[in-house]
Amino acid sequence: MPRQPVITLTTDFGLADPYVASMKGVILSLNPQAVIVDVSHAVRPQRIEQGAFLLEACIPYFPPGSIHIAVVDPAVGSHRRAIAVRTPSGTFVGPDNGVLSPALPEDVRSGAGDASGRVRLPEGSSGVALSDPRYHRQPVSDTFHGRDIFAPAAAHLSLGVPLSDLGEPVDEVVALAPFRAHRKPDGSRNGHIVHIDVFGNLITDIRGEDLPSAELIVQVKDRQIEGLQHTYASSKGMTALVGSSGFLEIALAGGSAAAELGVDIGQPVVVRSSP
Amino acid sequence: MPRQPVITLTTDFGLADPYVASMKGVILSLNPQAVIVDVSHAVRPQRIEQGAFLLEACIPYFPPGSIHIAVVDPAVGSHRRAIAVRTPSGTFVGPDNGVLSPALPEDVRSGAGDASGRVRLPEGSSGVALSDPRYHRQPVSDTFHGRDIFAPAAAHLSLGVPLSDLGEPVDEVVALAPFRAHRKPDGSRNGHIVHIDVFGNLITDIRGEDLPSAELIVQVKDRQIEGLQHTYASSKGMTALVGSSGFLEIALAGGSAAAELGVDIGQPVVVRSSP
Amino acid sequence: MPRQPVITLTTDFGLADPYVASMKGVILSLNPQAVIVDVSHAVRPQRIEQGAFLLEACIPYFPPGSIHIAVVDPAVGSHRRAIAVRTPSGTFVGPDNGVLSPALPEDVRSGAGDASGRVRLPEGSSGVALSDPRYHRQPVSDTFHGRDIFAPAAAHLSLGVPLSDLGEPVDEVVALAPFRAHRKPDGSRNGHIVHIDVFGNLITDIRGEDLPSAELIVQVKDRQIEGLQHTYASSKGMTALVGSSGFLEIALAGGSAAAELGVDIGQPVVVRSSP
Repeated sequence: MPRQPVITLTTDFGLADPYVASMKGVILSLNPQAVIVDVSHAVRPQRIEQGAFLLEACIPYFPPGSIHIAVVDPAVGSHRRAIAVRTPSGTFVGPDNGVLSPALPEDVRSGAGDASGRVRLPEGSSGVALSDPRYHRQPVSDTFHGRDIFAPAAAHLSLGVPLSDLGEPVDEVVALAPFRAHRKPDGSRNGHIVHIDVFGNLITDIRGEDLPSAELIVQVKDRQIEGLQHTYASSKGMTALVGSSGFLEIALAGGSAAAELGVDIGQPVVVRSSP
Repeated sequence: MPRQPVITLTTDFGLADPYVASMKGVILSLNPQAVIVDVSHAVRPQRIEQGAFLLEACIPYFPPGSIHIAVVDPAVGSHRRAIAVRTPSGTFVGPDNGVLSPALPEDVRSGAGDASGRVRLPEGSSGVALSDPRYHRQPVSDTFHGRDIFAPAAAHLSLGVPLSDLGEPVDEVVALAPFRAHRKPDGSRNGHIVHIDVFGNLITDIRGEDLPSAELIVQVKDRQIEGLQHTYASSKGMTALVGSSGFLEIALAGGSAAAELGVDIGQPVVVRSSP
Repeated sequence: MPRQPVITLTTDFGLADPYVASMKGVILSLNPQAVIVDVSHAVRPQRIEQGAFLLEACIPYFPPGSIHIAVVDPAVGSHRRAIAVRTPSGTFVGPDNGVLSPALPEDVRSGAGDASGRVRLPEGSSGVALSDPRYHRQPVSDTFHGRDIFAPAAAHLSLGVPLSDLGEPVDEVVALAPFRAHRKPDGSRNGHIVHIDVFGNLITDIRGEDLPSAELIVQVKDRQIEGLQHTYASSKGMTALVGSSGFLEIALAGGSAAAELGVDIGQPVVVRSSP
């Protein structure tokens, strides 16, 4: 039996409703051997950027041949395209609205501008619009392409159907700007909170590798945090550290930094060198 | 290796407690190759109708030979029976309290009356009371038949044990009335909200195929919604559309219809033709 | 193909974040045939005792050769050890802070004293510190040993790597006192609430086998409950019964005992014989 590629799911569907199970049923109906892993179904409703961030955080830990379905899809049934993109790090299936940005390297995504925009697929990657109805579940609903287009596409890919069979080739896809905070002329970094985890830790788009090498001060709201710790346990009170995905986090030992500071996704965070 | 039937789980157990994992442990102890899929564990505590609705919404997307366990079981340990029912659309395992109604076709369920009652199994279906202790996990607790009776029954069935081995045959089971709103003499449909999904969309028991072909008005609480849309994105404000499972839904673009209208499961919804 | 051991996961990571999926990706990258089951990811943040209780409740229902990962790890990255312990009931992988106590029999855990302390591994069990970097995911982060040390250890063990290859042997591990309420000289039992389940049932550390054989009275807060029921359905109002894991529970038919009584984990519960 050949090794099965893993199929991952990232959606804003939650786990209370039958949506995720319906997608799994469609996948297993086509490929009974499929290995399916949930990344997260708790993306906030229709927050494309958060979905892309959570997916990006996982990709390095899955086998390179994995197939990643991401469905955060406020415009389902409209003219936005359904696509699949194959890259050296995996195959990505979902709406063409930026949620599949983790498929693309940072330099390519930088071309998308500050918000989101179309970029050219780089060499070594290929993409298709999922336009061939033979690979759809019929009838295709206007409101649930996750079940009727994306799940069957991933299942067929996991069975070895060539990407090019699924539809017309595409050269350009919608991409979000990379998760990397801007550097200001004085060397400080201006970022923002992109995710708040279950512990209330604030995860920013400021990368550890971009931090000043000297002593630093992290500012969020009216709070200033001096210095960088290595572990959650090494400090009492509000703590700044580089988390397990390489991004600057703000944590509160034994509590929730989010609740203590009263902040949410989108809140600006600034890092500068100590004077 | 023969193809494994999928075993699905629908319960009100939540995912925080060890109940679902215990059921999976029992299944995998008996059949290490079992393929298990969670439908939902977020049925509201002891809401049998909601559990049946969520299960029914999934069944068409699973292979026909699948085994569906549903446990919403307020009377566990009392005289209610534990049953398994085999039909052309799958095998259903759980308490005989109506939660397995999706096993039965609509015309049979209509015989149950408005609330719930006993109906005869139709030709082509068969059922058993799970009465044979050889297929129970011993000792059987009075409070957790999911683990001690339903999980082992499903595991044995997935291994090919004949249904008739599990206990005494049954001819009648408890069924809920079908999820199909009443038609009034003037052609309007009187339904109610049966589920609210993670987006706050209100899912009713009014079927798309029963809607008037002319222009229509949907009334919920004091709000009137004119016309039917095809997608969530095609309208601003409160929207009526036929959702991915074929039922009329009320949605709010970019928000929660449930929160905006302040309604809950059970709320009446009326559809009539525009004058 | 040899039978795959089940790998279970018990954490306080929640399901919204990419942490659990990253661990699964690491496991499947090493062992594509791994069978992974979630026990719970809703342990309250950093509540080691609750994590140990939920894991202990599941173990009897998994095959004896299963590998149980438990990560409730407030001191990750500090000097606490990462360990794996093999016993007749399974192999346990996680931080050496007491969360793996279910690996140990009750008489051994009693040696830990009232809180937690080091105990000697009993005959027939063996343990290692997960110190060999060849079995770590590199680079090892200071904040996420679940992904970089525990997940790869479990995956290697599931592939048949000998326990002794993973690092230096250990003779002593940190253990929590057993989940068994104290017996007072007058025969009453003084326990406390260790978990509250999704129904609001209060699960105590008072074992059914320790209850007085005569009629009994359960006291929680200012409420007294007389007698023991066999099922949730057999009584109206506040009910005491021995739950499916063998512990005394307090339940409210059709409601939440936790909400009705306004109690939380840690609340004392006393059982004495009726006068």
